[in-house]
Amino acid sequence: MFIRLILLCCVFVSAGAHAMLVQKQRFTLDNFSTENGHTIAQVNIGWEAYGQLNADKSNVILITHFFSGTSHAAGKYHKDDSNSGYWDAIIGPGKAIDTNKFYVISSDTLVNANVFDPNVITTGPATINPATGKPYALSFPVVTIGDFVEVQKALLDSLGIGKLHAVIGPSMGSFQAIEWAVRYPDRVERLIPVIGSAYIDAYAAVKLERWAYPIKTDPNWHNGNYYDKGQPIQGLSTALAYITQDALHPTGFNQRYPAPELDKAPLQDIKATFSAWDQLLQHAKVRAEYQDANHILYLVRASQLWRAGMGDNWQQALSRVKAKTLFLPASGDLLLPPALSQHSAAAMTAGGNIPHYAEIPGIWGHLDGVVGISAVAEQIAEFLN
Amino acid sequence: MFIRLILLCCVFVSAGAHAMLVQKQRFTLDNFSTENGHTIAQVNIGWEAYGQLNADKSNVILITHFFSGTSHAAGKYHKDDSNSGYWDAIIGPGKAIDTNKFYVISSDTLVNANVFDPNVITTGPATINPATGKPYALSFPVVTIGDFVEVQKALLDSLGIGKLHAVIGPSMGSFQAIEWAVRYPDRVERLIPVIGSAYIDAYAAVKLERWAYPIKTDPNWHNGNYYDKGQPIQGLSTALAYITQDALHPTGFNQRYPAPELDKAPLQDIKATFSAWDQLLQHAKVRAEYQDANHILYLVRASQLWRAGMGDNWQQALSRVKAKTLFLPASGDLLLPPALSQHSAAAMTAGGNIPHYAEIPGIWGHLDGVVGISAVAEQIAEFLN
Repeated sequence: MFIRLILLCCVFVSAGAHAMLVQKQRFTLDNFSTENGHTIAQVNIGWEAYGQLNADKSNVILITHFFSGTSHAAGKYHKDDSNSGYWDAIIGPGKAIDTNKFYVISSDTLVNANVFDPNVITTGPATINPATGKPYALSFPVVTIGDFVEVQKALLDSLGIGKLHAVIGPSMGSFQAIEWAVRYPDRVERLIPVIGSAYIDAYAAVKLERWAYPIKTDPNWHNGNYYDKGQPIQGLSTALAYITQDALHPTGFNQRYPAPELDKAPLQDIKATFSAWDQLLQHAKVRAEYQDANHILYLVRASQLWRAGMGDNWQQALSRVKAKTLFLPASGDLLLPPALSQHSAAAMTAGGNIPHYAEIPGIWGHLDGVVGISAVAEQIAEFLN
Repeated sequence: MFIRLILLCCVFVSAGAHAMLVQKQRFTLDNFSTENGHTIAQVNIGWEAYGQLNADKSNVILITHFFSGTSHAAGKYHKDDSNSGYWDAIIGPGKAIDTNKFYVISSDTLVNANVFDPNVITTGPATINPATGKPYALSFPVVTIGDFVEVQKALLDSLGIGKLHAVIGPSMGSFQAIEWAVRYPDRVERLIPVIGSAYIDAYAAVKLERWAYPIKTDPNWHNGNYYDKGQPIQGLSTALAYITQDALHPTGFNQRYPAPELDKAPLQDIKATFSAWDQLLQHAKVRAEYQDANHILYLVRASQLWRAGMGDNWQQALSRVKAKTLFLPASGDLLLPPALSQHSAAAMTAGGNIPHYAEIPGIWGHLDGVVGISAVAEQIAEFLN
């Protein structure tokens, strides 16, 4: 496997007093072999980093992103950006994941959802297949959490980074973090699966299938061959709306969206919809402009297939983990509820590696693992030191 | 409003030692005025009863059914029926709702889902509109939980029944039970909302909208005008599959459906689905044969619109309830979680009527209010006596 690394720009641009400025970099990998036996001629992914790599390259923390996320885990691209990376609350100088001490790397996964975001670099069904000059569409191979990890490993190898002080990720990022610790137990010293799980059960796999349904049944999907016709926007937006709701606890959801009794039309017209649904869908439509419907299907599939070690026995696979581990589920999580972290922790304990465990409080459910992460900043900081 | 009652058969057929045999009866109501100001020329609903009405008609308990349910709450139609009514565990001679003491009535709602079940009599979009000779389809007016209650009240009035010893119902049946106690506080002596709520919040209204989506997007739905073309089976079955999953807790679901790692095809083929989903959908297809897609849309809408009193302030409406009340949510319920019963109970308490509260344990989630009801049989029996 030939590895080519293109450093487009410097890793960390020193910022002013208030903003940690970061820039996207590109990593390219030729002839990537997927878990299911296919070869992708060229893989490109984006990555960014915060902090300074020390001389013996022993201060590296890898951050792995969630389903709808990107490599933009912290900082801003420009000092006037309105938003920072999703975990900016805990990554930065003097923060829980202290960039004065650690060199923090985060990369875009394969089949990243936000393929049309100018700050995302990914490879998936929307990518031009060099063999045909057309987008892969569904000819792109099914990829797994294991494949995401292998691409990250190639990136780290290219940088000469061996050991990881820690791997930390929320939700689908927790899957990657765990798979890192299972596949490369001697390279991962600490593991923090946030709002995560070491496996997807039948219940979650079916819930994920329900995210795919609106896309697959949109007449504009055309079996994935829509790239010259325009996206299946209705199906994609509906899928993104479902994802948002499933990531929220009712308490937070009901604070954000209007109560049904405020709507008068639904009593008179069976076709009328409620404002809560209309607004949720409208928010999703805005996000859909940066996303690709087929990429969502591939992320759904990678998530459905997830189990530690990607074999027949995820419990046994967990016994290979040597990393000191901290599970951080969110108390109100209805998507990957604390029970999944508890079962994962129990399996690890049975294998002789007793993990730490704490819950993230909050009203936002699964989303508390992103927007409410400050609540466990202290536990993370202590665990890393 | 002219009320016509057709007694097709006797109320209670005395059974052998083991089976309480029951028969469906038909109630007909002309010119029913709906809450939203429309008139339905003729309403027919089915009902059944268990036990004997006493001389002063003071021993009546009304059972109100859930979303996918029917009036068949207990007993069997024939002694060789493989299934009994859904709450047979608690309704019968010597059971918690003791038919040696009480006369228990249960009726089909308007727009009942199971319109093609020979034991269901209902009126809804699939009904022939006498004015046109064709099914109403979407010209049928939106109906509410209040409308369901008014039809039941007309039935009871026709039987000369004034006071109710109790109204008891699970899930959507709890909505009807609560609305009975709000609209007719002097007629309802006891109220047991099981796996219920006094209102639907934005979160639940959107979840319900997701049940409607597969039907509305099925090309065979034809805006509800499919009666001469055949049902939108794919959309209807998918909706029923979603309903089943949402009524289950992951623990029960994962016991019933196979784990994802048993499937090999999904790793190779992005279009392949998991056995858990295939089986769930297959079970739903069997049920879909008795159900009507438009009826599901109308049940979704009636549920979305639900709030006690059907006005702007469900909390205030609850203060009209005089009935002694027992809330019975299921601990693992993810569809109408205990928090909804708790908020409802708190609003009632604020109005000066302090309800009783107990939780139904179990692994089946919302469904524990049906299949796990035996766990609270003793509480129900005590509360009724």
